[in-house]
Amino acid sequence: MVVRTPQQFKEMQDIDVKTEHQVTKIDSKGKRIEVVDLARSENQWVSYDKLMIATGARSRRLNLPGSDAKNIFTLKDLQDGLRIRNYIDEKRPESAAVLGGGFIALEMCEAFRLRNIETHIFCRRNLPAGNLEREISEKILNELKENGVDFLTEHEPAGFKTNSNGEVTIFETDKASYQVDMVLMAVGVVPNVEMAKEAGIELGKTGAIKTDFTQMTNLVDTYAAGDCCEVFNLVSQDWVHTPLGDIANKQGRVAGENAAGGKAVFHGVVGSAAFKVFELEVAITGLGTQVAQQYGFDVNSQIIEAESKVGYMPGSKRMLMKLIFDRRSGRLLGAQMVGKEGVARRINTLAVAIHQKMGVDEIAKLDFAYAPPFSAPFDPILIAAEQAVKKLRQ
Amino acid sequence: MVVRTPQQFKEMQDIDVKTEHQVTKIDSKGKRIEVVDLARSENQWVSYDKLMIATGARSRRLNLPGSDAKNIFTLKDLQDGLRIRNYIDEKRPESAAVLGGGFIALEMCEAFRLRNIETHIFCRRNLPAGNLEREISEKILNELKENGVDFLTEHEPAGFKTNSNGEVTIFETDKASYQVDMVLMAVGVVPNVEMAKEAGIELGKTGAIKTDFTQMTNLVDTYAAGDCCEVFNLVSQDWVHTPLGDIANKQGRVAGENAAGGKAVFHGVVGSAAFKVFELEVAITGLGTQVAQQYGFDVNSQIIEAESKVGYMPGSKRMLMKLIFDRRSGRLLGAQMVGKEGVARRINTLAVAIHQKMGVDEIAKLDFAYAPPFSAPFDPILIAAEQAVKKLRQ
Repeated sequence: MVVRTPQQFKEMQDIDVKTEHQVTKIDSKGKRIEVVDLARSENQWVSYDKLMIATGARSRRLNLPGSDAKNIFTLKDLQDGLRIRNYIDEKRPESAAVLGGGFIALEMCEAFRLRNIETHIFCRRNLPAGNLEREISEKILNELKENGVDFLTEHEPAGFKTNSNGEVTIFETDKASYQVDMVLMAVGVVPNVEMAKEAGIELGKTGAIKTDFTQMTNLVDTYAAGDCCEVFNLVSQDWVHTPLGDIANKQGRVAGENAAGGKAVFHGVVGSAAFKVFELEVAITGLGTQVAQQYGFDVNSQIIEAESKVGYMPGSKRMLMKLIFDRRSGRLLGAQMVGKEGVARRINTLAVAIHQKMGVDEIAKLDFAYAPPFSAPFDPILIAAEQAVKKLRQ
Repeated sequence: MVVRTPQQFKEMQDIDVKTEHQVTKIDSKGKRIEVVDLARSENQWVSYDKLMIATGARSRRLNLPGSDAKNIFTLKDLQDGLRIRNYIDEKRPESAAVLGGGFIALEMCEAFRLRNIETHIFCRRNLPAGNLEREISEKILNELKENGVDFLTEHEPAGFKTNSNGEVTIFETDKASYQVDMVLMAVGVVPNVEMAKEAGIELGKTGAIKTDFTQMTNLVDTYAAGDCCEVFNLVSQDWVHTPLGDIANKQGRVAGENAAGGKAVFHGVVGSAAFKVFELEVAITGLGTQVAQQYGFDVNSQIIEAESKVGYMPGSKRMLMKLIFDRRSGRLLGAQMVGKEGVARRINTLAVAIHQKMGVDEIAKLDFAYAPPFSAPFDPILIAAEQAVKKLRQ
């Protein structure tokens, strides 16, 4: 309990927080849960009126020879982070292998390089952040290279060779062997749904818990929120698994309000996210080209490069922006941006546009705040939208 | 011609640019203009098919005893800026009086202080940027004081005493006299409409040229664009005079397209603007409380302070945000923000919301990109909107 202690919960809100108590079973008919007091090794059944499942997700681990070595890490919570930092402080590893190409993998490449660790990132796809648009991923690849990260593509992990101390010394792929002093597996997360499933709680096609817009599951008086459950994507109009902290936070508040007798609704998300890798800001909202096509949209796109502020202002940087829109209606379906300045906070402007189902023609007419330290008279968003409008007219 | 030379205009677009040619009269019936070739002192009449009036605005000058002294400056264009810089370089003034409290006055306070000039700003209102919300202006006042600017309020300018060299040495108000080495008058602008008015072009109640949404004036084949004309405010649904560079730019493109036979429309603005004063970013969109009330809205507002990013991230700063909304419907009417980081680029998100007539309840539900270097899980916009929703329910 980092942000707030159990004592604070008690004093501020009269909430009993039981730490070191593991719930092992849900008896939905009896409306009770089985709880193990880990300190005393005692079991007991606790009854409930309303049940909230917030079991989160866990890091996915590749099951390979040697993958239980003690210097193979995953990163999901604060404890994971502390374990990694302590290992680096104690063992002073000189090299690391990062498996995966998502934003956890990328952020950790930066962290390793800041500690002067030789970093090899192994990616199944041929570009990092491979679920983003190709042009965005290419900029990320470039940033990795400029910061001395060795990007290795299309390697299939085969296993780990360990020393007598139980530590990985060699990482083997289907193509070659690499001597490394530590490994980070950053190959995604798996929702913690086993106990819920056993209790008869329905899962969605993503494998996460299915809820309705009030965060209620199929079981009476039983709610779910956070990384263990699905969320509705307002653009694709489909339930997806998007385990992100801000979504979990919002779902939790809705579930809590409803469990307490309220009538809150969580309408869903458009898919906004941002991360930083070295000096590069990356931000996305809505659907990417491929996903939009999978959902049956007839997709067109427009990519531009522009200055983040008026070119003569100190600190102005080139940024790349891609708009993904419906070929006929011009409705904006998604946007992705990358650059070293003024990127992440621009994306929310287009998140609103996507929420509102705006067309690129309407976006091109928006009145934005212009001042040279922050933007050119035509903001990159307006430039991109105007170019997109020209494609619509063709 | 700074951004592009007459030669470039000719080569790139076959446009003849006549520098040092002053238009002195419009003969709308004869469809011709009187032009003076300033170099040769020759007059001629030039006929036109379509006429575009882009005469801009000029700085307002207070007509006071001594106000023609050569060290009293205004700031509208590049030449004005060069004149001020040259004067400072040559004369090394130790003190300056700035008359006015708008964003030109404030930006110039920063410029003067950077040159170590003792700066006194004289403001009729009791706060700088007095047309903004009081809470925002108070932050600006604080920033001025922290940067050594002497803010003097409720002084009525009386006149200037000059030396034998024709330079101001004393600035007198109704309350006191101040020894100064230079003066900047930054008391607003006046649209250059005299010639247009004489030719029978209709002016709006603001005194600027009245146009329709195609930028056409009341005279046939005659368009106007930029600081000389009005613009439609989409929130107040009224024609206003908002002389800002990005608006001028957009109006010019619409007027040009229509003069060339196209069918472009400029729908109007919501009133977005931003400026920087020392380390402070200030950004606004929509209507302020007073103006909204004048237009008959039943106004409520919500003010919050929040961190610009997650508090533990380096560089996170407190920011202040005020939402102005309709008391009954909750529709967002305006937003103003101030802070040292992450302010200006947040305002456009709310500019879109205002364009779309969104309510604070809808804004509170938006899915924004969350990443600690850029924002807390709940962006300040979401926090402010949620607080506003609570007021609606009362």
